[in-house]
Amino acid sequence: MDKSKYAVLGAGNGGQCISAYLSLKGYEVSLYDRFKNIINPLKERGNIELKGVSLNGIAQIDCITTDIEEAVDGKDIILVVVPAYAHEYIADMLSPILKSGQAVVLCPGSTGGVLEFKRVLREKNCSAHIKIAETSSLFYACRTEAPGVAIIGGIKKELPLAALPSSDAKEIIELLKEPYPQLIEEENVLVSDMSNMNAVIHPLPVLLNTGWIEATKGNFKFYYDSITPSIGKMVEKLDAERIEICKALGIEVKSFKESMYFYYGAQGDSIGEMVRKVDAYKIVSAPSKIETRLIAEDVPMGLVPMAELAKLVGVKTPMMNITIELASILLGIDFRATGRTLDKLGIEGMDKESLLNYIK
Amino acid sequence: MDKSKYAVLGAGNGGQCISAYLSLKGYEVSLYDRFKNIINPLKERGNIELKGVSLNGIAQIDCITTDIEEAVDGKDIILVVVPAYAHEYIADMLSPILKSGQAVVLCPGSTGGVLEFKRVLREKNCSAHIKIAETSSLFYACRTEAPGVAIIGGIKKELPLAALPSSDAKEIIELLKEPYPQLIEEENVLVSDMSNMNAVIHPLPVLLNTGWIEATKGNFKFYYDSITPSIGKMVEKLDAERIEICKALGIEVKSFKESMYFYYGAQGDSIGEMVRKVDAYKIVSAPSKIETRLIAEDVPMGLVPMAELAKLVGVKTPMMNITIELASILLGIDFRATGRTLDKLGIEGMDKESLLNYIK
Repeated sequence: MDKSKYAVLGAGNGGQCISAYLSLKGYEVSLYDRFKNIINPLKERGNIELKGVSLNGIAQIDCITTDIEEAVDGKDIILVVVPAYAHEYIADMLSPILKSGQAVVLCPGSTGGVLEFKRVLREKNCSAHIKIAETSSLFYACRTEAPGVAIIGGIKKELPLAALPSSDAKEIIELLKEPYPQLIEEENVLVSDMSNMNAVIHPLPVLLNTGWIEATKGNFKFYYDSITPSIGKMVEKLDAERIEICKALGIEVKSFKESMYFYYGAQGDSIGEMVRKVDAYKIVSAPSKIETRLIAEDVPMGLVPMAELAKLVGVKTPMMNITIELASILLGIDFRATGRTLDKLGIEGMDKESLLNYIK
Repeated sequence: MDKSKYAVLGAGNGGQCISAYLSLKGYEVSLYDRFKNIINPLKERGNIELKGVSLNGIAQIDCITTDIEEAVDGKDIILVVVPAYAHEYIADMLSPILKSGQAVVLCPGSTGGVLEFKRVLREKNCSAHIKIAETSSLFYACRTEAPGVAIIGGIKKELPLAALPSSDAKEIIELLKEPYPQLIEEENVLVSDMSNMNAVIHPLPVLLNTGWIEATKGNFKFYYDSITPSIGKMVEKLDAERIEICKALGIEVKSFKESMYFYYGAQGDSIGEMVRKVDAYKIVSAPSKIETRLIAEDVPMGLVPMAELAKLVGVKTPMMNITIELASILLGIDFRATGRTLDKLGIEGMDKESLLNYIK
């Protein structure tokens, strides 16, 4: 069997690491970003140096481009490694050029990535038979030292992937098995969407540290310093609402605390205590300003679709609502409107039964 | 004319300063507090030492007591110097023992102090003909070094006082003129209530610095450090809602910025910039925890009655509402329920006309 060909869409930290890794693994890889200021320095280098705990070496990327059509043409697998708020744009750009047989994987999907993607393809009358999936987070903890110098700091040992229809997950995991053996099958996209832990742990600690962030330009540790007792309690309330929604949907997800124990072996009475037991969190700084992806991505692409799903099943989410409102007022963006509503997810008007049927 | 006799109810910083000052001025003064742990150390001393920018000396307080009846018996003027959330309790205790001719002044009334006080007296069928008023803040910036050692750091040069009916203000100011010449007549209690600047500037900067406060036990300057650009903008939005309510009520109050200029000569584009021009604010530390009067008093006795008045005149107050909700969730207290509702203010069911008629 020929080796799969990859398009990596998005040339930030994640996209640079993934394209370099795949390239060093011997795959044909194209790397795309819509922004010239990101692509040009990489194009000039012509390669990406990969360091860290995974492969090390200079990766010759076959194609580095701002032309999405050039990037995806003839590729088997399209990995979308952009902030979730750019998924709609990518879906929009891809819909006329996708070819039957291609697989698209959102890395990660945040909450509702695949649902939104499918809605756009449907609206644009995309006739290609593609497979589409989302992971629940990125493959790596990674960063870039400079444009074209990428570092993989840690590799997730298990990474759930969910497809729509859910039965497609097996085939996509099989396709990706050689470079990414850590992928495991998630029940369906709803489970994946409702397991978005970033939405649980990011927004509240930023919002309730607005002054500290602005006064010090984020000169403190995000997890270690800012998840104080009251903030930890708020996060727990938010998480309890997430669990309630899942119960009403009839799906099972880990609580934040369970996942902290599951992924990191962290134990403790409070969320603050648990996060301070995770070594990897020790080095994570607070954002330098409140205009951060921890809000701008995790509220509209995390909490908003969760709160929307809550409405669909009649669960009250006062903590999610106040977090969304506060973020909207503070950043001057109406995240309820810009975020993933049921309408944008393509599931407006469905009841629980038809939704569960749709995501089967 | 005989010198007036004073009862000072509340023996915190304010009550200790006021009773010592009045005593040094030669008035007969009783000092009351309901808490033995506050009264006993003062009783043991038998006096209060007053320092600072006002009078200096050892004040022999005529009566220091936890018996409110003993405190107010035979007094002409009753100064109520307790947190606003204790006004209802004081009104309740006073209603059976007040005598016609006595004057009660809430120092200060926060938002709705006099309205609430009157409602309680009415409910308790208090038949004494008393005069009742509220100031818009305390007479002094003051603190205590130790029980019985009180320091007046600054004296307000002008202090509005409003009465109900408003025509009583003149007479009460006349009564208090000798010790407190700075009192000026406020149009009515609504103007006084809606001029509660603590409600504007206290809650949001605490709430949006929850993490910083808990992580450092408030080891930063409240006004100087924590009114960052985003928080300043939020405070301005809140203030704009307050002004909208006043417009709808047909009353005129200063905006927070106008009052900063009026009282301190502070100028600047943003609220953060202005507060940093006030020397007196330089030394004000952040609270050591979020369970602070800056929330527990200024939300239920400030923002809640403001938001209630907004409902009465049909003004939308999203910023006030989210501040009240956030405070309620963070402190685990339903401030909408514990705070000064229209019902507690005794004005439930009134329309604008009947309200304006009532507070005439």
